[in-house]
This record gives sequence, C-alpha cells and structure tokens, in this order.
Amino acid sequence: MVAATASLDTLCINSIRMLAVDAINKSKSGHPGLPMGCAPLGYTLWDKFLNHNPKNPQWFNRDRFVLSAGHGCMLLYALLHLTGYDSVTIDDIKQFRQWGSRAPGHPETFETPGIEVTTGPLGAGISNAVGLAIAEAHLAAKFNKPNANIVDHYTYVVMGDGCNQEGIASEACSLAGHLKLGKLIALYDDNRITIDGRTDVSFTEDVLKRYEAYGWHVQHVADGDTDINAIEKAIATAKSVTDKPSIIKVSTTIGYGSPNKSDTAGVHGAPLGEEETVLTRQELGWEYGPFEVPKEAYSHYRQAIERGASKEAQWNQTLADYRSQYPSEAAEFERMLRGELPNGWDKDLPHYTKDDKGLATRKHSQICLGALGPNLPELIGGSADLTHSNYTDIKGETGSFQAATPEKRYLHFGVREHAMAAILNGIAYHNSGLIPYGGTFLVFADYMRGSMRLSALSELGVIYVLTHDSIGVGEDGPTHQPIETIPSLRAIPNMLVFRPGDGNETSGAYQVAIKNRKRPSALCLSRQGMANQANSSIEKVALGGYVIEDCAGNPDLILIGTGTELELCVEAGKQLTSEGAKVRVVSMPCVELFEEQSDSYKESVLPPSVRKRLVVEAAESFGWHKYIGLDGATVTMNRFGASAPGGTCMEKFGFTIENVVKTAKSLLN
Amino acid sequence: MVAATASLDTLCINSIRMLAVDAINKSKSGHPGLPMGCAPLGYTLWDKFLNHNPKNPQWFNRDRFVLSAGHGCMLLYALLHLTGYDSVTIDDIKQFRQWGSRAPGHPETFETPGIEVTTGPLGAGISNAVGLAIAEAHLAAKFNKPNANIVDHYTYVVMGDGCNQEGIASEACSLAGHLKLGKLIALYDDNRITIDGRTDVSFTEDVLKRYEAYGWHVQHVADGDTDINAIEKAIATAKSVTDKPSIIKVSTTIGYGSPNKSDTAGVHGAPLGEEETVLTRQELGWEYGPFEVPKEAYSHYRQAIERGASKEAQWNQTLADYRSQYPSEAAEFERMLRGELPNGWDKDLPHYTKDDKGLATRKHSQICLGALGPNLPELIGGSADLTHSNYTDIKGETGSFQAATPEKRYLHFGVREHAMAAILNGIAYHNSGLIPYGGTFLVFADYMRGSMRLSALSELGVIYVLTHDSIGVGEDGPTHQPIETIPSLRAIPNMLVFRPGDGNETSGAYQVAIKNRKRPSALCLSRQGMANQANSSIEKVALGGYVIEDCAGNPDLILIGTGTELELCVEAGKQLTSEGAKVRVVSMPCVELFEEQSDSYKESVLPPSVRKRLVVEAAESFGWHKYIGLDGATVTMNRFGASAPGGTCMEKFGFTIENVVKTAKSLLN
Repeated sequence: MVAATASLDTLCINSIRMLAVDAINKSKSGHPGLPMGCAPLGYTLWDKFLNHNPKNPQWFNRDRFVLSAGHGCMLLYALLHLTGYDSVTIDDIKQFRQWGSRAPGHPETFETPGIEVTTGPLGAGISNAVGLAIAEAHLAAKFNKPNANIVDHYTYVVMGDGCNQEGIASEACSLAGHLKLGKLIALYDDNRITIDGRTDVSFTEDVLKRYEAYGWHVQHVADGDTDINAIEKAIATAKSVTDKPSIIKVSTTIGYGSPNKSDTAGVHGAPLGEEETVLTRQELGWEYGPFEVPKEAYSHYRQAIERGASKEAQWNQTLADYRSQYPSEAAEFERMLRGELPNGWDKDLPHYTKDDKGLATRKHSQICLGALGPNLPELIGGSADLTHSNYTDIKGETGSFQAATPEKRYLHFGVREHAMAAILNGIAYHNSGLIPYGGTFLVFADYMRGSMRLSALSELGVIYVLTHDSIGVGEDGPTHQPIETIPSLRAIPNMLVFRPGDGNETSGAYQVAIKNRKRPSALCLSRQGMANQANSSIEKVALGGYVIEDCAGNPDLILIGTGTELELCVEAGKQLTSEGAKVRVVSMPCVELFEEQSDSYKESVLPPSVRKRLVVEAAESFGWHKYIGLDGATVTMNRFGASAPGGTCMEKFGFTIENVVKTAKSLLN
Repeated sequence: MVAATASLDTLCINSIRMLAVDAINKSKSGHPGLPMGCAPLGYTLWDKFLNHNPKNPQWFNRDRFVLSAGHGCMLLYALLHLTGYDSVTIDDIKQFRQWGSRAPGHPETFETPGIEVTTGPLGAGISNAVGLAIAEAHLAAKFNKPNANIVDHYTYVVMGDGCNQEGIASEACSLAGHLKLGKLIALYDDNRITIDGRTDVSFTEDVLKRYEAYGWHVQHVADGDTDINAIEKAIATAKSVTDKPSIIKVSTTIGYGSPNKSDTAGVHGAPLGEEETVLTRQELGWEYGPFEVPKEAYSHYRQAIERGASKEAQWNQTLADYRSQYPSEAAEFERMLRGELPNGWDKDLPHYTKDDKGLATRKHSQICLGALGPNLPELIGGSADLTHSNYTDIKGETGSFQAATPEKRYLHFGVREHAMAAILNGIAYHNSGLIPYGGTFLVFADYMRGSMRLSALSELGVIYVLTHDSIGVGEDGPTHQPIETIPSLRAIPNMLVFRPGDGNETSGAYQVAIKNRKRPSALCLSRQGMANQANSSIEKVALGGYVIEDCAGNPDLILIGTGTELELCVEAGKQLTSEGAKVRVVSMPCVELFEEQSDSYKESVLPPSVRKRLVVEAAESFGWHKYIGLDGATVTMNRFGASAPGGTCMEKFGFTIENVVKTAKSLLN
C-alpha cells in the first residue's frame, strides 16, 4: 500500500489508473486492465521522452505514439487529457464510450485529435508503426541536410500479448528488422494474461528471442509495475541503438492496484465495479474522488505544454533556416505537408484511341505509374513480392528502400500482404503528403482485408494495385482466381473499387485514386489484354459509370460491363444492333462513384423504364441486382474457377460474344 | 555434370526434375524452380520415410504430406506418378494445367486423389499441417491402447521462403511449438530466391532461431542439392524428437540443373524453354526424351506400392485386433472414419416457444454446443482467445487440448484468427470424422478470410462461430462492428452463411451446419438478446427462408428480416397490420439455402407479383437487391458504425419499429 506521502511520480501514475477505473465504471464498459498495468510505462514514456505539442497535435515533427493494444484506450485518453490536449477534456472522459464522445471505445483518428492511429484489431497498430517509421526514414533521407534535420522523430508503440500473437505483426516486425528501422521502439506489455486466461494456455514462445531473430534490439524490464527507473533506462538505451528497431519487454501486472482482480483475465475487459474500486483506492492510497486528478499531477503533466511549444518553436526555427538555405526543397516539403498535389502531376497520364494496341490493364497501370513517378515524388510503394506480375515498378527508377538507401521509394514488402496493407496505412497516417500504393494478386486481398477495412474506416488514401482480377488468371487455377473478391471489396464503405476496361479507364482510375486522399482505392486489373474502346474516357471514370455505346432513341436493352468484359459487351452490342436490337452499352468502372452521382445523371445512364439489363462481369453477381433488379440477367460466375489457360476459362464459363448475345436475346424475347 | 553411370538415386531425383521441366514446357506455364531444387528432398522423404499406399490414397493411417509451397506442384505430381498412384498418369502430367486435368496449376484435393491439402496461397499449407497433426494427436490419445496404435502417423510439410514470410504460418507454428506437436516435420526449402529476386531484398531474419523461439527442434542441411544422406539423417533425427515439432532448413538451389537459370528468380515461375532445356539435359546427363522416365527409376519408385500394401495390411491387422479387444471403441472409430454421424446426435438441440426467455444468439449457440457435445464426440474446436465472448465452450467439459492432454477437444488458438481457420481446415482435411469449429468476433472474419475461402473451395465442413454480428456490438465501436462482413461472406461460393433470428433458428443452423460435411458454415450470432418467435422453426432453417408471419390473401408488402432484426420485422408487421396493411414477414436465416430451393417454393415465399419488399438487416444492403429488385427498400447500414451502447447504435442508425414502419409506409403509399 502506497503511503499518503506518495511521490509525485506515483501520483501521476495513479492518476492514469484511476481515470481509467472511473471512466470504465461510469460507462459500465471497457478495459481497465491495460491502463492500470501500463500506467508506469505510459507515464515514463510521455513524461520523459515523448516529443509532442499538446496544443498542436498536428505538429509535424512530433514523435508518433501508437497504442497497438487499442482496447487499453483509457491509457491514451488519460495521457492526452493529463498532458493538456484540448481534444480530451475531463467531460469527454466522463462520456467514455458514449454516442458522440471524443473518447470512443477504441482510439479513432477521425474522432480525436492526438490519436495517431486507429487501433483495436490486434497487431495492426505495431504494423502501422512500421509504416510510420518508414515514412520518417524516407522523408529524413530525402529532405534532411547535414545542418538541418527537419524530419527527426521516433515512433513509439505499446503492444500486448495479443499483438505479439497476430501474424500481421510477425510480418511487419520481420520487415522492420530487415530495414533496420532504428527509430521504431516498441514497449511490449508482458502481463501474461489474455481473455482466455493465462497466456500459458496458448502462448509460451520466447518472444524476445523471436525479435532477436528478426534483427531487433531486445531488452527486458522485469518489474514494470514500480521500477520506472528501469523503464526510463531501457527507453534511453533503445533510443541510442540507431541501427535496429527496439523492443522492450516490460513485465507488468494487469489491473495493478486492484487487490482481487489484478493478474486475472477478469480485469481485462470489464469494469472493476463499485466495491472493488473502493478497495483499489485503498490499495493505491488514492484519496481523491471519481474523475478527480490531484493538482500536483496536473501541473507536472502539463509541463508538456511548455516543453511542446518550445520544441515546436525550435523546429520552426530549423525549418525557417532550411527554407532560406534550401528554398526549393523547403517548398516541396511544405507543399507535401499541406497535402497539395504538385502542378501537372497528371499531365503525362496516357490517352488512348481505339487504334492503340490493346494491353492488360496491369500493363496500363505500370505505364501510369511510370507517367506519374517523375511528376509525383510523394508516390511511394511496391509489391508483396510480385513486382514483375503486378507491374508496380516505377519506370526509370532503380533500387529500393533499404536500410542503406531509405531515400528510395520502392518497397519490397516480401510475401507479407497483411503487413503491406498496414504499412501503407502507416505511411498514410504519417500525414506528410506521401501517397502509398501496394500490389498483390487480387485474390490475396483476402490476406490483407483486415487492414484494407481500416484504410476505409480511417479515411486513408491508400492505393491497392490488385492484378490478375478474374478467371482470366488462367493456369494458376481456382486458388488464384478471384470470383467473390470484387463484390466483397465493393461492400466495404468508403472504399473506391475500380475495374477499368481499357487504357483510358486505367488512367482515369489513377487520376481519381491519387486525388482521393481521404479514401482508399482498389484497382482491379487484368492479367490479360483487351482492346482500347473508341468512346472510353479518362474523365468519365470520375462518374463511375457512363454510356460508352448507344442507340438512337430508347434502348430495348442495356448491357453493363466492367474490365475485360467491357469489350465483350461492346462486341455483343454490335452484333445485337446488327440484328436490329436497340442496345446501349454502359461502362461501369467504379460502382461507388456512380452511386454518388445525381439521380438525374444515374437515370440518364440507366433509364428506370428500361428494365432489360444485362451485367457482364467475370465475378460473382453479388451486388449487381441493384442495377438489374428482378427483371435483368447476368453473365457472371457462380462457382470457383478452374486451372486452364485464361482464354479457355473465359470460354468454358460463358464469357463469349455468343453467350452474351444469347443471354441478351433471352431477355429481349 | 553427372556421368552416364548416374546412381539410381540420381536417376530417381532427375526423373522428378525432368518431368517438371517437360510438363511446364509443354503447358507453357508453371513453376519449375521448386521441383528442380526440391527433387532430392522430395525423393528422400517419399522413398525412405513416407508411409503411404499408392493404391489406396485414403488409407487412414498414412503419413500426411503437404506441399505448402503449392506452386511447386509438379514435385508432387511427379512423386504421385512415380510411386504408382492411379490418379496421376503420364498423360495427366502431359495435360498439366489444362482444362479438366488431374494435374492442375496448384494441388487441389477435389481434383486429384493423393493430394492431402489444397495449396497455393502461401503459408496456408504449413498451417493446415498443424491441424492435421492436432487431429492425429487427438485421435491417437482418444483411441490408441498400449498394445494397439491404430492412429500413428507423421505429418510432413515442404515449405518455402514465401510460407515463412506469411503471418498465418508464424501464428500456426507458434501454436504448434506450444502444443509440442512432435509428429509434425517441416522441410524448409531455403533457396534464397523469391519472385522479386534474392530474399535479401526483404527477408534476412534468422528463420531457425525464430522457430527455436517457438519451441521447435531445428536442423540445417547445408547442401540439399546433392547430400541426400544428410537429408535422410536429418529426417530420421526429426522423427526421433517426439516432444517438439521439427523444422529442417534444407539449403537448395532453385532450378538446380539449369545452367543459366538456376539460382535466379527467372526459374521460379516460367518454363525453361526449349534451348535451356537442352542445356539442362546435358548438365544433368539426362539421356531420355520428354516425359520419358528410365525403367530403373520407375521400378525403384514403385516399390512404394508393395511397401504401402504391406503397411496397410499390417495396420488392418492391428485394427482387427483392436476391434476384437475394444469393440465399442473400434465401432466409434470406424463410424467416424466412415463419416457417419452418431444416432441421436441432434436429439438434445433445444426447441423454444415464444414464452421462453429471449437470449442472444451467441448464448443460444453455447446452449447448442452444450447439447451437441455429449452426443457428438467428434466435435472439436475452440476460440481465438474469445471463449467467454464467443461462448464456444462445451458445457460440462473442463480442460483443453494441450501437450499433456491431447485427448481434450477444446482448443485455445490464442489471438491467431488466420491460423485458427487454417487449423480447422487441417482437421477437416484429416478426413477422420472430426467436426471442427472455431470462434472469433464476426468482424475479425476479415483476418482469416484467406482460409475461410479455402474451406469453401476445398469443400471442408468447418463451422465458424462468429459472434458480435452488427452495430449491436455497441461500445467497442466501428473497429469491432461488422457492417460489410455478412454480405462479404455471402459472396463466397459454397459457404453457408447463417444469421439466426432466435433460439429455434440457432438450433436449426447447427443442425444444418453439422450435417454439411462438404461445405463450411458461418454462424453470425448476436451479442445482444432478442425474443423467441411464435412461428420460428428449427426445420425450416434448412429452407433458408420461410414465411414466419402472414396475412390473409395476397400481401401488400413483404418484410424480410434476419438475426436481431427479425423481431423488428415481426413487431413492425404487427403495427402495420393493425393499421390495415396486408403484411407478410419472411425470415431469411440463410440466403444460400433459400437460393437452392425450387422456383415454386421461392415464389411461394416471395410471390413475383409482390414487389413492395423491405429488407431489414443491420449490415450493408449489398446483395439484397436480388430479392427487393428496383422497387423495394432497405433498412440497412451504408456507413461504418460508432462507439456507444448497442441499443443507442441501433436507434441512431434507424433500427427501430418506427423507422421500419415509416420506410414500409413510404413503399406502400
């Protein structure tokens, strides 16, 4: 039991613990165990190390803090509040987990300034942090000068046992070790408890040895409950190790301070309750009322405001010097920080006519990346080990982001799709103008869907380059042929899913994707070639869908196509027209953008009176009935594919002019 | 260069290499690098160790062989062919990757007898293998007697650098180490090449040290190209280590034998081509024509037939002895192998009336598991560390599957969703009657979607228990609230997605799911309670959708509801009826099963003439227009949720009787 003469450190630490206990009791919901156990390490990190400015959460050069164990969010809200952020008042904390609160159930960037990363899904935060550290290292290499470090911050992470069990974190941390990201420092809250009980029911590996195998610097603080000197020393050592990322295993007691619930799974995710809270107050020697913070604690914590203002002022001076010495670099840097695209960024995106050679859209995508590269230096990305299949390289550039060459912007993610998506999110979270993109096969979007969802939820303008988009994949067979993948991506709110039908539409897709800095784009691209259309349009991609071939007067039938099946619709349309039908062909490269158009535009493309509508897409029909209703038809896939040459698959599964014409006629007759 | 007097071993090894080269050349597509590099280890394992019976690929007690690096499938087809499986003839190999071939582009269980696991998506195979090893250990502990080991086999895996980079494999191998699965042996093809080039662009961790950290036994064979004695010794040592899984890093040369392409990424996934094939024949001293296998090689390999027949005969004798000594255990064992469910397995599934207390469907699910447990001993499963949220425990049972207690059937997967799904698949692949289930939050289906897809593709009757199925999750907020997850699962072919609306429908969902041994089921279950309906039905769940409340005569309006929104539809229906409307309410617990019914049944539920249809489901509307067409409406979610109590979320997002009535009236007027 702590005496009434508790040290200032103890007062500060217990302020976190009791704010968490009180908020979670009041909301009758939440996770007190982590904030109670991690209060000492949180306090030490934020008080002794974290460079940040509470009055300007967007100050660029701040250290980034990521609570990968997002359920412990009361730790973060308490620290934001105590150090003086306006975004989290004591009233916000009293509204923990209530409708409209800035203290929601997990940390969300879009709700609360000062939150760097939306967390909750385990393992994602540490993987985002790898992206933050990559962004810092890249920008530092790109902009810093010997006498002017305008980019210079650490990325700190608090992660738990859950994060360390998730594969996404294994992938990301293996890559972080490879890349020697020396300014990434993870504090691993080793409390030996997960929801199912003690970790020894499922998790007995030697975590630090694993990180050593990844190439990290590892340390262990044996008593994270009371030995804040050891925590301080370990963080200082980690900072001094600049050629490796660092992990510090801090052994703690979950729910520290609760006499009956600490060190049990019971304190992980449920309020302490009235009775145990009384006992906890006694145990911690806490003489204050609910939501009451001792003045001494406030005044100590809030020194962060002055420190932060001074740090930012110092940096502003560094930037001012930089601006005068390196005006063009400074202009570029500040443009990026403002989130402005450079003039003429899209001027080289290619236009095509129908006489230009037809290519696969993955190839058109490569041409677009090559056209954007020189004009858009903030474009940064790569592939999950499929560079020469995804065509994600930027033409004319050599080398890749490596420990020795962080100024390069091509990222070899390895065969690590989920980490790739999280790292791309991390680069976007860095909010420094970088435009992240990453490639894999479309079917493997399933591997990274957890993080794609977070791109959409957290409003991150990540660009996913997803090639081999249908049974057209061919020989690799059904494990590699997406059927349901495109519809599944379309179901995600705030995600733009593009399936361009030729060269112009691919240029258009990039044009929209690059401009959309607040929502992710998934570019679904073909392995195989297709013709360029006479009436395709770069600009009209922004409308999501448009009439690409039309008849005189009211159509009898509307054919709707996307991607490689657009050509099929156009050709089938010609044949039907030659046989006397009045046929309109609609290209629909992005359903979400079409949905956003005015009713009058949508009805001009799909007149309500024309109910004979046929969708052709080499994917599950799921979702298309919104446009074809009960009276239309589809030429789509309702089963998994098969291993055979792509052309054979297309033919066997009915993606032929004959079958489209036949299906259309069955609607017309 | 190998002399003309090549040893028999060399002839056998080169037979694999050249079959791969020839098949891939002929199909102009495929991955020769792995089979050429792994031929020595494949030969050694299959010739010296693998217990199998080529003439009965389904012999229960065979060793399981998993090619986790599935792109190298020509290794496997060559071994199946050479050792005498009828499923892969030389003509099949000549038809590699062609329509209808039994030698498709990746190994597929549903195409080729002798293939244990469908592979291709990297990391999945090794994780499935963990499931196979769990199945073996469990059944051995359950059935073996001191004098009768009727369950006794190894699980061997060949994995590559790609598998070792994937997070799913990290998760599964960490758990395998924890569980001390001593009969799991992985051969790691360390060829230092991936598609992007040398592994040192992204993958420089110390893999063996990582496995040591997991608790595995590790070995290294430095020369896997020629030193088959070292390979043999290492496998023998691995077999002798019974308290740890084993990994043997075998350093090989990708594309061994190709003078210009070996040890390059160019040989990973493209045919050698005519010219290089000539040079490779010279390099290997291979005097035989395309697809020609030397007689000596055939006759050596095919000793496997006799060995296999003898092994199986021995085992049959062991089983016969067992049958006479332990008739009831033998009857149980053989029933399971036949895939028969026990009599009365579902007799305790509960029925409810409207007067029974309403519960959350996750709670009904727990009651079902408790009711099935004693009658269905083959039920085996657990949770990804959410046992007390998912309610996946089997009432009355204690303890879990651990190294010391493999006879237990509860699995603590840890916070490892993707590995969980792959392990469940592995248990199903074992094909020994076990019925695997696993739980997590529905929103984290995204973490394991890659393996859920493989459950569907490979026709595995895995049961996914997915709780917290909507914004009803409440305070945990949008990171934890599924919006698009249910529609995304419905888009997967061959997956049954259930969203039961009360106790009876939950019993019905389990009844169908247990019976479906050839397709997976996803049970989407609520956190929050709901009333039991007067007219809900266990049996009618098998119809997918049915009329639960009806009016006299033709309805003016049909309300369609699922899960927690079924009650809302019934109550709104009552109110509309009281105001004079003719309303039918349809419960649709499983869209896929409804789709399979006859047109006449479907039209009896949803008469084509009634076009005023309103779907109520707290999820994205994606997919529902198939039933409501262009004239219906939805009360659904078109954005991510928010952190607040579940009831508040439901109300704020319009899931109220008032809003359903209002929306219905807008259709009616």
